[in-house]
Amino acid sequence: MLKLCRQYLNWIQNSVFEGEITEVKLKELVEKAKHIMDDETDSIIIFKSRQEKWLEKQVVGLEKNDLDTFL
Amino acid sequence: MLKLCRQYLNWIQNSVFEGEITEVKLKELVEKAKHIMDDETDSIIIFKSRQEKWLEKQVVGLEKNDLDTFL
Repeated sequence: MLKLCRQYLNWIQNSVFEGEITEVKLKELVEKAKHIMDDETDSIIIFKSRQEKWLEKQVVGLEKNDLDTFL
Repeated sequence: MLKLCRQYLNWIQNSVFEGEITEVKLKELVEKAKHIMDDETDSIIIFKSRQEKWLEKQVVGLEKNDLDTFL
């Protein structure tokens, strides 16, 4: 799942991903994810904001991006 | 950390919380969190949206809320 999500988005924390994505690409990602997830126990929660300026981001502590480059 | 965050927000997935919170309460939560987190390894990423309608939410699979009531 991590590998799949990283093909479409940036990995920012444990099971959290972030990024700009088109509706078509997002549908593709969700469909692929459904095949590998367990509906009984797993969940994907998608927060969408049409404009980046509508969403303010604040990071406290370490930014995952620092690690991401080593993976 | 889970216990602290749940005092202010709803737990929606592993390390993800959601909710309406005032700036004052959010600052309070972040200050308390800083005391129990390890700056070298841990991070808190806060996404803020001023208006709920600016943020669209979609859930695929199980909704954590179903479990939440048992905890």
